[in-house]
Amino acid sequence: MSVTVVGSIALDTVETPWGKNEDGLGGAATYFSLAAAHYARVHLVGVVGEDFPPEHVQLLESKDIDIAGLDTAPGGTFRWSGRYHEDVNLRDTLDTQLNVFEQFHPELPAAARKAPYLFLGNIHPSLQAEVLDQSAARFVALDTMNLWIDTTLDGLKAVLRRVDCIIINDSEVRELTGENNHILGAKAVMDLGPRIVVMKKGEHGCLLLDADGIFAVPAFPLDNVVDPTGAGDTFAGGFMGYIASKEQEDDATLREAVIHGSVVASFTCEAFGPDRVAQVSTGEIQQRYQAFARLTAF
Amino acid sequence: MSVTVVGSIALDTVETPWGKNEDGLGGAATYFSLAAAHYARVHLVGVVGEDFPPEHVQLLESKDIDIAGLDTAPGGTFRWSGRYHEDVNLRDTLDTQLNVFEQFHPELPAAARKAPYLFLGNIHPSLQAEVLDQSAARFVALDTMNLWIDTTLDGLKAVLRRVDCIIINDSEVRELTGENNHILGAKAVMDLGPRIVVMKKGEHGCLLLDADGIFAVPAFPLDNVVDPTGAGDTFAGGFMGYIASKEQEDDATLREAVIHGSVVASFTCEAFGPDRVAQVSTGEIQQRYQAFARLTAF
Repeated sequence: MSVTVVGSIALDTVETPWGKNEDGLGGAATYFSLAAAHYARVHLVGVVGEDFPPEHVQLLESKDIDIAGLDTAPGGTFRWSGRYHEDVNLRDTLDTQLNVFEQFHPELPAAARKAPYLFLGNIHPSLQAEVLDQSAARFVALDTMNLWIDTTLDGLKAVLRRVDCIIINDSEVRELTGENNHILGAKAVMDLGPRIVVMKKGEHGCLLLDADGIFAVPAFPLDNVVDPTGAGDTFAGGFMGYIASKEQEDDATLREAVIHGSVVASFTCEAFGPDRVAQVSTGEIQQRYQAFARLTAF
Repeated sequence: MSVTVVGSIALDTVETPWGKNEDGLGGAATYFSLAAAHYARVHLVGVVGEDFPPEHVQLLESKDIDIAGLDTAPGGTFRWSGRYHEDVNLRDTLDTQLNVFEQFHPELPAAARKAPYLFLGNIHPSLQAEVLDQSAARFVALDTMNLWIDTTLDGLKAVLRRVDCIIINDSEVRELTGENNHILGAKAVMDLGPRIVVMKKGEHGCLLLDADGIFAVPAFPLDNVVDPTGAGDTFAGGFMGYIASKEQEDDATLREAVIHGSVVASFTCEAFGPDRVAQVSTGEIQQRYQAFARLTAF
């Protein structure tokens, strides 16, 4: 089964204590697609500017990602620039240029509309609603951010009532619900609509809450974090891609999907940009999945 | 097999957003003992003042804890007072009165010396060394804190070379080694002596590193945290008590011990003071151990 993703495609300039990557391929939908493509056919919906390097398009195509929904608009590609601290949980955004992304209104090609799985990347809730209106997906997950919680809460709540699953940071849960306690916070999010809450806690792993209970998993321990940019988006890609490959969303599948999301996210952190997660082999993914089992077994 | 613990016995005044507990039974060695007593015979070594309420002594004795090493000195019992925030990961120490603890020099009675397992609670490294000199233990674990890392680093390093295991917070690992990365930090701690590192991450669970690799475990998710005081000490008590009950320290036993530590720590958080963890039944511990298995299974 295939999965549609709508979100940002960007050129990122990232500084970490271990190096710098200028104008590299970035964006939530990019990371999502390259991760999900290991598991399922992906329909990518987004916009780039005329400056978007053709080799990035070629990379996406080489992974059999459907780019029929990738629009090229007059102007520049969305650009983001950030700097990570020694403690890579902390980062400063240095610059954001929306460019063509500012006027973006997603239009889904036929295949993207028909895809049974849909991921609404972290874009304005009204755009997420536009996408939902076009989609025939039977399982929808959503990402959001503090900006929309602060500025567009009603719009966000309207979309939340229409989705099955939310993939969200612990700090965003706190902001959205006012709850410091993770479990109470996740339950308060469920009251807003989603029956499945995946709470990402960065290097501390994540929590899955659904009707069957709670699944808690640590992050894969890495001693070589180079650039965590896109880790959360990659997580979502591995999670949704795996579910789409299984064509079911029961608790056991969701748990496995969380591990696959964690596995691909760990690869993302090991290099600048999405190259590592794009090029990782199925064997490497399987091996790390097994390492995860060993990591948490007692 | 029995386990000896040396550390603080206190009267705590604790405020949380959910209530206040004045002059309650506290102290690291107290929490440790009441947790470990579920698994093994405990020899408690510490000092209290003449104001120490006899019912606290009776509680310890009722749990078959050996209090031959519990000294009563002229003066007041060690007192600690703190206040937790809405985010219970944050707390302010309001007051500390060392009182009789200031002149404390641990003297181990015969049974405490002979115990094969020893836990050096968070006291001055030179006192930890004095205890080691008296002990015939074949497996020793140690706790410490930022105060000793800041002020007595050489003394701490001298003791670290003599222990098998350290149980330490992630922030303390960072302070001790200068490493932000958990894995690199734990390995740097191993270079200082201990072959086993247990890194506590509060509500994010903990990491175990030994010669066989890494074990990562989330904290048990609680939606009713009332008072986290003593959770770390209880964790150590469950961990060491379980190991003492098994009389072995292989990787599989250490992993199970981490879960038992996490289980008893979760009970501690559910009420003010050590009463909950003291009174919890073996059945409840087993039940939560099984819930832990379900929580992390995939």
